[in-house]
Amino acid sequence: MITKISNPIFDTITIIGAGLIGSSIARASEASGVAKTIRIYDTNEAVRACAAQIGLGDVSDTIEAACTGADLVVLCTPVGVLGAAAQAAAPFLKEGAILTDVGSVKESALNDMVAVSPAHVHVIAGHPIAGTEHSGPDAGFAKLFSGRWCILTPLEDQSDSYQVSVQKLSRFWEAFGSTVEIMSAKRHDLVLAITSHLPHLIAYNICATAEDMEQVTEGEVVKFSAGGFRDFTRIAASDPTMWRDVFLNNKEAVLETLGRFTEDLAALQRAIRWSDGDQLFDLFTRARSIRKSVIDAGQDTAAPNFGRRSDEDDTPAE
Amino acid sequence: MITKISNPIFDTITIIGAGLIGSSIARASEASGVAKTIRIYDTNEAVRACAAQIGLGDVSDTIEAACTGADLVVLCTPVGVLGAAAQAAAPFLKEGAILTDVGSVKESALNDMVAVSPAHVHVIAGHPIAGTEHSGPDAGFAKLFSGRWCILTPLEDQSDSYQVSVQKLSRFWEAFGSTVEIMSAKRHDLVLAITSHLPHLIAYNICATAEDMEQVTEGEVVKFSAGGFRDFTRIAASDPTMWRDVFLNNKEAVLETLGRFTEDLAALQRAIRWSDGDQLFDLFTRARSIRKSVIDAGQDTAAPNFGRRSDEDDTPAE
Ligand SMILES: NC(=O)c1ccc[n+]([C@@H]2O[C@H](COP(=O)([O-])OP(=O)(O)OC[C@H]3O[C@@H](n4cnc5c(N)ncnc54)[C@H](OP(=O)(O)O)[C@@H]3O)[C@@H](O)[C@H]2O)c1
Ligand SMILES: NC(=O)c1ccc[n+]([C@@H]2O[C@H](COP(=O)([O-])OP(=O)(O)OC[C@H]3O[C@@H](n4cnc5c(N)ncnc54)[C@H](OP(=O)(O)O)[C@@H]3O)[C@@H](O)[C@H]2O)c1
Repeated sequence: MITKISNPIFDTITIIGAGLIGSSIARASEASGVAKTIRIYDTNEAVRACAAQIGLGDVSDTIEAACTGADLVVLCTPVGVLGAAAQAAAPFLKEGAILTDVGSVKESALNDMVAVSPAHVHVIAGHPIAGTEHSGPDAGFAKLFSGRWCILTPLEDQSDSYQVSVQKLSRFWEAFGSTVEIMSAKRHDLVLAITSHLPHLIAYNICATAEDMEQVTEGEVVKFSAGGFRDFTRIAASDPTMWRDVFLNNKEAVLETLGRFTEDLAALQRAIRWSDGDQLFDLFTRARSIRKSVIDAGQDTAAPNFGRRSDEDDTPAE
Repeated sequence: MITKISNPIFDTITIIGAGLIGSSIARASEASGVAKTIRIYDTNEAVRACAAQIGLGDVSDTIEAACTGADLVVLCTPVGVLGAAAQAAAPFLKEGAILTDVGSVKESALNDMVAVSPAHVHVIAGHPIAGTEHSGPDAGFAKLFSGRWCILTPLEDQSDSYQVSVQKLSRFWEAFGSTVEIMSAKRHDLVLAITSHLPHLIAYNICATAEDMEQVTEGEVVKFSAGGFRDFTRIAASDPTMWRDVFLNNKEAVLETLGRFTEDLAALQRAIRWSDGDQLFDLFTRARSIRKSVIDAGQDTAAPNFGRRSDEDDTPAE
């Protein structure tokens, strides 16, 4: 839930990159009252025009106008251009301004931002664990972050003023209904490699395999996709630029988890080849227990098919 | 949509195995009026008691009582015991009775049923492409098959009376709101290997990998599962017995598609290792196009996160 707060946390905030996440932050900031002024900027003129048209804060035409005097600058671009975006913003960042991001990889993001920022700026990397498979300014909505985690990966800087900035940034995300978790960038990248990056990689891969099989089966893969495959296609509908950058910037952790996945898959393949029913049964039973943990942790709904209904007037008997 | 038909297609139908699919057929039969009498039987006494308690047709206490005089017998057990279930039913099947099933693998099902059936019975294998991750008699609901495909894989028997039986069985599924597609058992098993069996295998495998990583990351895999992983856990929540039997009985097609998947994954791994951004981008873009085909074919909703809402009062701006 977003509840309007009584005192703004920041005077002026600036969002760089007005896509799904950037536009959602703009809407959530508006709804929660975290800032007096909300500025938004994007290098893409068409995106700026769209942002202005749908009323996402004050749209700036230059990065200078966007960043000058801002108390908080949130970079919402793909991970691969975070360094370039930070460098463009750097000359205009005032003393004590907070520079943060929302990228899905954190060690490279933190390094890229620190490398180009003046010493008087507080760099704190961040990642809201919230999103959809859609992108662009009109895909955003205010409640995207509500009931979700937001991970912050600050520097080891223990100065009082830096700590105050970390607290302010935490309150900012909490105002959107998020729960903030603080961890090291390295740990973030390992955890997300298994919970997000590997699943996306696998989903993309199975879609590529299916696309080749589509020729063998003359259109029947899509036709009968409701058997399980369609759920993978949703994950694989995510933005190719965003995901290319994730894999290029979290190479080490992704290759490590992918290695484990491939080993496990080889064992499963062997069990099928040798008709080892017990091994299959045991592994499937173990896998099922993790589903229970996910539901118990409140991270998903137990309704069948994510509550997808098989018919307009159908209510699955649960 | 299920609409009540005016003339029952069968006098008496018998459902063997009162789990998710069996109980859904019982409810759909009741709702559509496809039969005058609906009998149900399960080897598990507790399941029979539950079926009787929730009012799923006439619950029989023996397979003899269930099958004697029935016009249609639908086997709704796991694939691995279809032969045993057909053998138990065989002595009681009357001349011209239809024996069918709903198993997720068709070549083995057809062979297993034919091997034990008297010549005067019409064996027609079937598979409704509908289901949820839940099992048991209370997981079923009448609309499960509505708007879904049902694949029938008949024998090559071209006798007039056999063809009439195929038509009657088609009308039976159509009365539940399904669209019937007829193909060979071999083709079914190849198409389903990619659209259903491989996705389930991969989902089980990623859950197993994640479970091991859960120790490395001290509980954080479940905590941050909303980043993509949780969608795999749902698929991996399906019944271990059912899926063990699927993999043991569709070994050849599953190993073939798994081989393709593994090759593709090796190429993807290499692209990450060598930072080949263009290759990643191209593959992700290709994968995305298949999502579009799935939506265009009406096989899924375009709402973000399958319409899962991030908050009770949230309506994603689409
Ligand atoms: N989508 C998710 O589910 C999700 C979840 C959590 C975090 N994230 C992270 O959030 C970030 C943004 O993702 P998104 O889904 O919001 O992407 P998006 O919808 O594609 O938006 C990104 C926007 O940034 C603009 N941009 C690109 N380079 C820029 C630059 N140098 N300066 C200013 N603007 C620039 C893009 O313009 P063009 O269109 O012209 O490139 C686009 O409008 C990524 O780092 C991603 O890892 C995404
Ligand atoms: N679930 C899906 O999404 C889905 C979709 C399409 C097709 N199918 C196919 O439908 C079939 C049933 O799946 P389901 O999900 O309905 O499974 P389920 O909920 O586990 O039900 C199977 C029922 O059959 C009973 N049974 C086992 N052996 C039997 C026998 N020899 N004679 C009579 N009853 C017996 C089981 O009793 P116990 O509990 O004691 O074993 C159980 O009650 C499987 O072949 C599956 O491949 C499933």
